Amino acid sequence: MNVAVVGLGYWGPNLVRNVHELPDMDLAWVCDSREQALAAIERRYPAVPRTSRVARALEDPAVDALVIATPVSTHYDLALAALEAGKHVLVEKPLAGSSDEAAHLLEVARERGLVLMPAHTFLYSPPVTMIRDLIRSGALGEIYFISTSRVNLGIHQPDVSVVWDLGPHDFSILRYWLDEVPSTVAALTRGCLTPATPDVAFIHLAYESGAIAHVELAWLAPSKLRRTTIVGSKKMVVYDDMSREPVRVFDSGADLAEPQTFGEYKLSYRTGDIVSPKVSVTEPLALQLLDFRRAVIEGATPRSSPELGVDVVQMIEAVDDSLAADGRPVDLRQTVG
Amino acid sequence: MNVAVVGLGYWGPNLVRNVHELPDMDLAWVCDSREQALAAIERRYPAVPRTSRVARALEDPAVDALVIATPVSTHYDLALAALEAGKHVLVEKPLAGSSDEAAHLLEVARERGLVLMPAHTFLYSPPVTMIRDLIRSGALGEIYFISTSRVNLGIHQPDVSVVWDLGPHDFSILRYWLDEVPSTVAALTRGCLTPATPDVAFIHLAYESGAIAHVELAWLAPSKLRRTTIVGSKKMVVYDDMSREPVRVFDSGADLAEPQTFGEYKLSYRTGDIVSPKVSVTEPLALQLLDFRRAVIEGATPRSSPELGVDVVQMIEAVDDSLAADGRPVDLRQTVG
Amino acid sequence: MNVAVVGLGYWGPNLVRNVHELPDMDLAWVCDSREQALAAIERRYPAVPRTSRVARALEDPAVDALVIATPVSTHYDLALAALEAGKHVLVEKPLAGSSDEAAHLLEVARERGLVLMPAHTFLYSPPVTMIRDLIRSGALGEIYFISTSRVNLGIHQPDVSVVWDLGPHDFSILRYWLDEVPSTVAALTRGCLTPATPDVAFIHLAYESGAIAHVELAWLAPSKLRRTTIVGSKKMVVYDDMSREPVRVFDSGADLAEPQTFGEYKLSYRTGDIVSPKVSVTEPLALQLLDFRRAVIEGATPRSSPELGVDVVQMIEAVDDSLAADGRPVDLRQTVG
Amino acid sequence: MNVAVVGLGYWGPNLVRNVHELPDMDLAWVCDSREQALAAIERRYPAVPRTSRVARALEDPAVDALVIATPVSTHYDLALAALEAGKHVLVEKPLAGSSDEAAHLLEVARERGLVLMPAHTFLYSPPVTMIRDLIRSGALGEIYFISTSRVNLGIHQPDVSVVWDLGPHDFSILRYWLDEVPSTVAALTRGCLTPATPDVAFIHLAYESGAIAHVELAWLAPSKLRRTTIVGSKKMVVYDDMSREPVRVFDSGADLAEPQTFGEYKLSYRTGDIVSPKVSVTEPLALQLLDFRRAVIEGATPRSSPELGVDVVQMIEAVDDSLAADGRPVDLRQTVG
Repeated sequence: MNVAVVGLGYWGPNLVRNVHELPDMDLAWVCDSREQALAAIERRYPAVPRTSRVARALEDPAVDALVIATPVSTHYDLALAALEAGKHVLVEKPLAGSSDEAAHLLEVARERGLVLMPAHTFLYSPPVTMIRDLIRSGALGEIYFISTSRVNLGIHQPDVSVVWDLGPHDFSILRYWLDEVPSTVAALTRGCLTPATPDVAFIHLAYESGAIAHVELAWLAPSKLRRTTIVGSKKMVVYDDMSREPVRVFDSGADLAEPQTFGEYKLSYRTGDIVSPKVSVTEPLALQLLDFRRAVIEGATPRSSPELGVDVVQMIEAVDDSLAADGRPVDLRQTVG
Repeated sequence: MNVAVVGLGYWGPNLVRNVHELPDMDLAWVCDSREQALAAIERRYPAVPRTSRVARALEDPAVDALVIATPVSTHYDLALAALEAGKHVLVEKPLAGSSDEAAHLLEVARERGLVLMPAHTFLYSPPVTMIRDLIRSGALGEIYFISTSRVNLGIHQPDVSVVWDLGPHDFSILRYWLDEVPSTVAALTRGCLTPATPDVAFIHLAYESGAIAHVELAWLAPSKLRRTTIVGSKKMVVYDDMSREPVRVFDSGADLAEPQTFGEYKLSYRTGDIVSPKVSVTEPLALQLLDFRRAVIEGATPRSSPELGVDVVQMIEAVDDSLAADGRPVDLRQTVG
Repeated sequence: MNVAVVGLGYWGPNLVRNVHELPDMDLAWVCDSREQALAAIERRYPAVPRTSRVARALEDPAVDALVIATPVSTHYDLALAALEAGKHVLVEKPLAGSSDEAAHLLEVARERGLVLMPAHTFLYSPPVTMIRDLIRSGALGEIYFISTSRVNLGIHQPDVSVVWDLGPHDFSILRYWLDEVPSTVAALTRGCLTPATPDVAFIHLAYESGAIAHVELAWLAPSKLRRTTIVGSKKMVVYDDMSREPVRVFDSGADLAEPQTFGEYKLSYRTGDIVSPKVSVTEPLALQLLDFRRAVIEGATPRSSPELGVDVVQMIEAVDDSLAADGRPVDLRQTVG
Repeated sequence: MNVAVVGLGYWGPNLVRNVHELPDMDLAWVCDSREQALAAIERRYPAVPRTSRVARALEDPAVDALVIATPVSTHYDLALAALEAGKHVLVEKPLAGSSDEAAHLLEVARERGLVLMPAHTFLYSPPVTMIRDLIRSGALGEIYFISTSRVNLGIHQPDVSVVWDLGPHDFSILRYWLDEVPSTVAALTRGCLTPATPDVAFIHLAYESGAIAHVELAWLAPSKLRRTTIVGSKKMVVYDDMSREPVRVFDSGADLAEPQTFGEYKLSYRTGDIVSPKVSVTEPLALQLLDFRRAVIEGATPRSSPELGVDVVQMIEAVDDSLAADGRPVDLRQTVG
């Protein structure tokens, strides 16, 4: 499978390295409009063809797929061109700069029978998949609520808000875990450093299933936090991506006994063992590329599916809509309808 | 100063003990409608007069003040009766079951020149006052945002939501720190165990000053958290009431340099020392009673003022109003106006 | 069962309270030579007979047992007098001020068929007994080594070293867990504040079974630590008495495969789940008194046996002997022989 | 300055990379007896001359210095050959396999006016130098004692004990901080996996200044610890190399007031602020190479001096001597004489 990597900015070189190292995946082209970026790649991979024109890669019949790691604003045009050239596409998150664009890409990919995969890398992170398995197995019971914080000092993006930057992580994880799009989204944000660009966001999510969630995102914080609490009716989980024990399962909860006498419920609390299961340390990026390859070869849908990618963009848009409506909850069911 | 303590449930005996132990404050009466509660007090303080009728204490001309620790629903009637009987009043939080009631109590107390003090004990907690001083001194700079979590497993209250139960703590602290009532309040809650009674709440607060805040309250959580992050333009603070170092001051932040050339802002990050200042371990309850005594004797306003108490009730009501409006932000300025 | 408590200093009142509250155990006398200490008890338990003369309690035929909480230097005389008066004895740790005295008490108790129990309260602490069960069950495999730190700032004792003060805790726990007395003991200490009284001690222990241990004791430390690591051939345990999760079991270790070819051992590492088992929160002091009562009534040996108490005193003495010999290891097998 | 790196095992490639990246330092040769190791370097640095014969580098008049990263047993011969060939030498720790060898190397280097530098990299670690400055400045007062743990699961060395493997880290740090060699060393170790090779070690160190220290080293442990406590008469420091706050300074201690009346000392405890100073994140390895270069160019003594390197080897030998003498303290003053 021959792959062209487009965009050699912050993240692109990681993709280049992984594509290069994976067996059964060949690096056919690297593309970037900046000569400097190409030169840096040349030093490390002198044998890899380089170009400043994406068209070169698109025209190359040997290229099976494009991996796009350019700024969000270019995702739609590049992915569309690639699909129209008959190439499979792996595109950095978010899938596109608007849900309309994202939905159109999805449509084109379906029509042409090509793989369109947003690079929601966290769906390949071992702690995230372990928790997904715990939820699916029923071990946690009904999911009551989820509260998550993804904050640290920096790095402010010049052109997008913290919601477009960090939101895709949590939104894709929530979508993956709950298998559900929120019915309503409400947000409160502030541009602390520059009023026009939110660098802190508090987001409320409500789901049809009854689950509720809170997402806190910030580029300003005393220390780095990557902490999510999942409270289920049977067990609770803390997922802390900064910890040596990223998943902790708490066998605790509250149970409401059926009323013995009229109207009297009796509540009892359980606190049992706490387990930090051994979590694999496989690099998510490699797993993601392997899933992309599998999808291309088998004509399968990748775990990080284009449908999920569209949903994530809709969730981000819903945050912007809520902000435009002074924080009022936005109903996503109508949009998605 | 002679004090009658009314209500000997969960919290009342602590007040009895503190009133008993403080010099210059005498325990004139203990009142409770339940004989059993009175008997328990008798065993420990055989010399203290007991009664099941509050009227006995109100009629006693030697009684200077009532300390009310009964259920919220009774606060208004008891406090009103006490004020009308010419007694000063210290009443457990929240001040009353509605802001109208709370405002009326405030009015009566003002007319009669009596002290009416809601027992927002956290305002006397050394970490809270230390942070207040840091904010007031300007050491933190402009307050950008505050995020706080007060969660643990239990104890579900039978009659009120987690907002009425735990909310007064954070709302009074925020009101004390920021010296400001939020302009809008929006909430998302769930009654996980019993649908009618929220046991988890996510609350958005926006302030005129520009500050925003998020408050998370829950009776269901894998472990007890009492953690608040305050992000200012100059410094940041983490207040963790479960830690041996309850206050940690981070000399870090981001600075936006004036644009040198047209339109180009330059952002720089600072991360400096982290200091855990030594915090006094004085018991807040004793400090609170001393402030009550001082207010009575000097005719002063206590730190936990009745105005603050009214504001806190309005914040709780705003949460309920937002819930009734499907999570829409409620404008508190109109209400307060 | 009628009990006289002798010694109302720092720890005595806790014993008085527990004896008073336990059903089937009556507080027959409280004794102390200081009128002030007796008066303090009188205020809380006006009905309990008081005396400044231990003889009064010893002469009282209704008294079944003496609980001795006086300074170490008086343990021997008081315990001996009690045993000779036919009373069962529970005596604060260490059992006596020398192993000769301790051994003599043991002999007298045996001859008279009386219970002599040193109050090694940690043997009744739920985390300690849980670890004992883990060791006994073989779950940890062979015990390779144990490393323990018991340090904090204060409280310097005026008359004894940190080894006599804190050592009995760890020495009794090690003796209980390993069921073994160390074969050699070597120590390094320093009297930081007053040269003659060690306030920090590092102690090496080697056992016949092959286990080795290190014990660190200090009255000077930046923060309070109560942390013990137990490394077994199958699993490892961290016991942290300051943590909300006092026992953590690590399913990790190293395995040496049999050499396939001549002389080549192959080492492999295991790191599996980490479990924090739910630990009971029963008060050890109450469990200890109940075990004393059971021993008296059933004529049984208490878990904190007098033999263990003698061993602990010998371990402390071995530390002093090692110090007297400039840190040379002292052979306990000869002593115990 | 032209440098030849000898030994391309675990650590050598890091040295190669650093030498390669540093300006004013050129990589003249890489040497290793294994073709495979040379080939790996060739792929990354195709232009660097390679040889399997150290003699090639020694004969090259353009080579100024040898960086030796081979097994300990070869240090002496290689370093001696290099010095005799007139080359400056940076050699991995420990300096040599015996103190006699180390002392001889030192002598030869002195005679020839060449730099001989053991690579005690921790002396260039920012937390270690910060603590050194705190000690030197007197801010901590008199150093009472130091307790340090360097443990984790793995990696067992096939040929040397944990003391030869991990000991140089702590011994060099202690020597650097205290500017003193211990007067006595006593050790207790165990070869848990293979009896002949200690994989856990408890080491007592006593100093002429009065300071005492305990060093715990292990290749078997439930979790990785790199934790050192330094207790001074004025302040205390915790150095935790695994923490985001590697240095924490505790303004706490105990003070002994002069006796007011005959024989009565009065002890008081201080607990003040705790400060985590901002610590630079410069890579110690680069700083070490720069110091080597400075020493060569200026004819100066590097911070990690050969004298310190000899002392560290003597400390390790003293541990072995103590083990051979059943744990008896070994007097280093006689040795050092």
